[in-house]
Amino acid sequence: MNTIPFSQDRPLDLIAIGRLCIDMNANEINRPMEETLTFTKYLGGSPANIAVAAARLGLRTGFIGKVANDQFGNYITSYLVKEGIDTGNIVVDRTGAVTGLAFTEIKSSEDCSILMYRDNVADLKLEPKDVKEEYIRQSKAILISGTALSKSPSREAVFMALEYAIKHNVLVFFDVDYRPYSWNSPEETGIYCRMVAEKSDVIIAGREEFDLMEAPFGELRHDDWYTAETWLRCKAKLVMVKHGSNGSISFTNDGKTFRSGTYPTIVVKTFGAGDSFAGAFIYGLFQGWSVDRCQKFGSASASIVVASHSCSDAMPTVEQIQAVIDRNEN
Amino acid sequence: MNTIPFSQDRPLDLIAIGRLCIDMNANEINRPMEETLTFTKYLGGSPANIAVAAARLGLRTGFIGKVANDQFGNYITSYLVKEGIDTGNIVVDRTGAVTGLAFTEIKSSEDCSILMYRDNVADLKLEPKDVKEEYIRQSKAILISGTALSKSPSREAVFMALEYAIKHNVLVFFDVDYRPYSWNSPEETGIYCRMVAEKSDVIIAGREEFDLMEAPFGELRHDDWYTAETWLRCKAKLVMVKHGSNGSISFTNDGKTFRSGTYPTIVVKTFGAGDSFAGAFIYGLFQGWSVDRCQKFGSASASIVVASHSCSDAMPTVEQIQAVIDRNEN
Amino acid sequence: MNTIPFSQDRPLDLIAIGRLCIDMNANEINRPMEETLTFTKYLGGSPANIAVAAARLGLRTGFIGKVANDQFGNYITSYLVKEGIDTGNIVVDRTGAVTGLAFTEIKSSEDCSILMYRDNVADLKLEPKDVKEEYIRQSKAILISGTALSKSPSREAVFMALEYAIKHNVLVFFDVDYRPYSWNSPEETGIYCRMVAEKSDVIIAGREEFDLMEAPFGELRHDDWYTAETWLRCKAKLVMVKHGSNGSISFTNDGKTFRSGTYPTIVVKTFGAGDSFAGAFIYGLFQGWSVDRCQKFGSASASIVVASHSCSDAMPTVEQIQAVIDRNEN
Amino acid sequence: MNTIPFSQDRPLDLIAIGRLCIDMNANEINRPMEETLTFTKYLGGSPANIAVAAARLGLRTGFIGKVANDQFGNYITSYLVKEGIDTGNIVVDRTGAVTGLAFTEIKSSEDCSILMYRDNVADLKLEPKDVKEEYIRQSKAILISGTALSKSPSREAVFMALEYAIKHNVLVFFDVDYRPYSWNSPEETGIYCRMVAEKSDVIIAGREEFDLMEAPFGELRHDDWYTAETWLRCKAKLVMVKHGSNGSISFTNDGKTFRSGTYPTIVVKTFGAGDSFAGAFIYGLFQGWSVDRCQKFGSASASIVVASHSCSDAMPTVEQIQAVIDRNEN
Repeated sequence: MNTIPFSQDRPLDLIAIGRLCIDMNANEINRPMEETLTFTKYLGGSPANIAVAAARLGLRTGFIGKVANDQFGNYITSYLVKEGIDTGNIVVDRTGAVTGLAFTEIKSSEDCSILMYRDNVADLKLEPKDVKEEYIRQSKAILISGTALSKSPSREAVFMALEYAIKHNVLVFFDVDYRPYSWNSPEETGIYCRMVAEKSDVIIAGREEFDLMEAPFGELRHDDWYTAETWLRCKAKLVMVKHGSNGSISFTNDGKTFRSGTYPTIVVKTFGAGDSFAGAFIYGLFQGWSVDRCQKFGSASASIVVASHSCSDAMPTVEQIQAVIDRNEN
Repeated sequence: MNTIPFSQDRPLDLIAIGRLCIDMNANEINRPMEETLTFTKYLGGSPANIAVAAARLGLRTGFIGKVANDQFGNYITSYLVKEGIDTGNIVVDRTGAVTGLAFTEIKSSEDCSILMYRDNVADLKLEPKDVKEEYIRQSKAILISGTALSKSPSREAVFMALEYAIKHNVLVFFDVDYRPYSWNSPEETGIYCRMVAEKSDVIIAGREEFDLMEAPFGELRHDDWYTAETWLRCKAKLVMVKHGSNGSISFTNDGKTFRSGTYPTIVVKTFGAGDSFAGAFIYGLFQGWSVDRCQKFGSASASIVVASHSCSDAMPTVEQIQAVIDRNEN
Repeated sequence: MNTIPFSQDRPLDLIAIGRLCIDMNANEINRPMEETLTFTKYLGGSPANIAVAAARLGLRTGFIGKVANDQFGNYITSYLVKEGIDTGNIVVDRTGAVTGLAFTEIKSSEDCSILMYRDNVADLKLEPKDVKEEYIRQSKAILISGTALSKSPSREAVFMALEYAIKHNVLVFFDVDYRPYSWNSPEETGIYCRMVAEKSDVIIAGREEFDLMEAPFGELRHDDWYTAETWLRCKAKLVMVKHGSNGSISFTNDGKTFRSGTYPTIVVKTFGAGDSFAGAFIYGLFQGWSVDRCQKFGSASASIVVASHSCSDAMPTVEQIQAVIDRNEN
Repeated sequence: MNTIPFSQDRPLDLIAIGRLCIDMNANEINRPMEETLTFTKYLGGSPANIAVAAARLGLRTGFIGKVANDQFGNYITSYLVKEGIDTGNIVVDRTGAVTGLAFTEIKSSEDCSILMYRDNVADLKLEPKDVKEEYIRQSKAILISGTALSKSPSREAVFMALEYAIKHNVLVFFDVDYRPYSWNSPEETGIYCRMVAEKSDVIIAGREEFDLMEAPFGELRHDDWYTAETWLRCKAKLVMVKHGSNGSISFTNDGKTFRSGTYPTIVVKTFGAGDSFAGAFIYGLFQGWSVDRCQKFGSASASIVVASHSCSDAMPTVEQIQAVIDRNEN
């Protein structure tokens, strides 16, 4: 494939839209949460993590989102500012919403779970009017995180952003980021994610997430080639199917296929693997690298984050990622 | 334009989807509702009215909808059965929802209003799983009424029906039927109606309804030609802009334009004008008539209904409509 | 018993508090509602009916309640004004609430049912701040209707009125008026109705309604004497247990018991029997009549209303009631 | 006053009812929460703290409450078990409710605040049917925490418990524990807290909390003597008005008054002062001590807890409290 065609002469590279929340990561791990005594606070939320990843790698990054009018909301915004991310389009909620929380439970590197607080959260209060056409047209690309589609009015805000992006030739990345607890039903997820996928340029999702989007409309095939064909026939230029620890496979609209594996590492927890991968992969596309190289870069980034205690805070620099690649190739 | 290309060899002509409710029409009219003593009960709801109109004209008609588990719900279903409409896909709500009501107030033929009961109504409880792919593929066309998009889960049920229709080459009519009280905001209306309009074959809406769909994405032009171009560039084959008592104007994807006026009549109330027009217009398209003739047929039908006390119950037969046309042409 | 001791020198006799709604009575009766063609609109709601009954009999009557900001709300207030009831403490809702509706179905005089519209109704939006201490202290008595306890904030408004009444030595009538559809559970009904009953001077309820209040706290006895003892030990001076067509039995705090029967009549429907009884009974107490005579007066009033098409509109005058008594005693 | 007359021969001394939640206490203190890095998890909720305080002092203690079906819910129950508190009447929620959270912010010992998570919390889902008459009759006393009155169905569950307690001669302690964020309005708080206060034997509340209960019914007097008279005229045997760092004043139904001060200590945070005071004070009443001595014991306990990092976990033993008293009297 030729490289993804970004509009040039835009002040921003990437605007992420969606969830901004707090991860509360267990400090005492390899035990059930009942026995965890203390938790460390980090910025969380898939698009927030990807934005941090992108900014650390050097992309000029912005965010469209909503934060609670409290200490956690302040913390989120100031963390993003510290990372050099433009927060001018992050709105403060005035309805008494709270910051979403994710308490991690790490029983072992294979047995991780999350206890979520998602009632009345600020990020899902994002409204269509909070999305500014003028802002989106200043960026080469937007990143839509599927969780932002799970509730109104955030859902409508995302559709607004999507239309503005198309109108102004802004590339659309769509990361499904399926979180069952946010949705009323898998059918609802499939319906709305399809609507975004149909108009996206790059779709990144796990096998099960693609299945969700295919489920309403016929027998499931669990077939990556069929999936790729479905979406490449719409607007997509690149479709990436993630298979967890088995790596991922990408399909491009010139008929090519790219597989990637994972880098060996000592896994502390699996959280953050997808976000670090996506951030680094997207960075690579911006550099005009081959899809192959982008995937490798993403995998190396993921291998660093899963070995760390946090997600956002552990996002690596270009040098750190390159060091992993170099180490493994020699 | 060549006639609209309906798939042949389908057991049904048209399946309407959406609102089924009760009209309570003031018997003592030309006064404020406070002074109305008695009301007469009729089947109501735009797609219900259109379905009755179509069935009386001879189309093989079905309905996808949800009714309350009470006497009004029973009445609705039995009325449709009596009209020869297939009700096999009308589901009975089990959550305690009620039947939507519309009390009409007719102060004068120009000053009509409606007092709506739309809290917890059964029609908006239609769920994706209530929509059967097998049923939709049996029809030449579906009619989507925009009000069914105003709330979840009915909204998702409509999107499901839309996708099934496209998959099986079923023609999609979209009548926006904007009712502000059903929606959270005009932005929300514009966003979701656009999504259906983009994939519809025939779009029927008033000037203000098209404006709603254009509003989110730029300065309003209030320009029928611009509107037509917008939607004909998507999937639409025919775009009709209604201008109330000033008639309507249709645009087809072969670049033609058709204007229609109204027939003289003694107006009792304006309710039902749009539905009777739509029903007769759609009937004409099924007959392979020219758009011109379809519009004339629609206008004649509307002139009969606005002179009557009810909407659904007053829907005319082919002969009654033809009689109006003949009378006015001689 | 000595007569109920009303505070004298108050400008009002009785303030009713609670439900104000619309009855839509079937005009074509003795058939299922599906076959009813037309409905006649009347003022409805138990405390509204009792207030009309009291006013027609000559009591100086007021009302504390909330009406929708629409034609039905206007109708309710203007109807009360026409009956000479003080409406200065009826507040107009500004939240978009609707007027409660009760469609009657009269299959036969024994088989009557009601189709209710109680979602988002104005009467249950009454707030504590809508209840004015200054107004309540101007009355000899208040009448609390149990349905007003079914939802917040109306529930709290009633408790406020109750405390003001006690503070200013205003007699408290409590008519349980149990409507299952308004409540979350029978337990909830029992809990809150008990709280009012404990502080009421006169309690009027059916056998099943007393059972609801006794249910949470021990095995049910279905025993009128036990019931009377329970409440007379609190604050009540008079406890009346209604047994439908079998009449009623009253207990007073001087240990006396009074039974009443019903007057022969041609029953059209049973709706309104209890409200007309209560209105006339309360009127009798204000006259200082013996409980015996009050009950007889109430029964005669009920016999008139059940023979009519409406509830509120059929409330009789003193002369009409007396005529029934005279006719039956000679 | 004679000692508070507890029913003897009951297997339990005290059953607390109400909030069970998690405190997340900032580890890095004397800074805004934005700069806090880690939090330590503790059992929280006023009645939970009091129950722990009572159990550590040796009272046979039980709890009626509801916990989330998750790791935090498990933690709460197992912590109570570890403290020797009977948890047989703690019900696990099955509706997907979460555990309430309280993140503390300790800017200085005088400037402490709490960031609450109270949406969809399990403790407020307690239902009337979760309260067992048989359990309450096994106790000498119950402790009602006012926060449990803030929402249905917990509110009704508390009223149920209150009636069972009265029926079986179980003493009622009422600690108002006002938390504005839990309530719709101060009026609502006043109304429902009054209803419990009227039937309580011992009322413990701050000056402002008593004001809330007096506000609806006349001009505020902010007068402890007037307040005491109000409630002693109802059922209360002891009314305690707390004045924060100025100590408290108790009034008993034999006309006596008791003042208490505070013990000198190095305050880390003010949270937990009231609960530790209440737990130790109640313990003293169970011992038959004079109110004077009970107050002193309560103050000494509070002085220990405010010097610690946690609330529940810091509750002292009899010996620890006595040591404070001894140290200060010599």
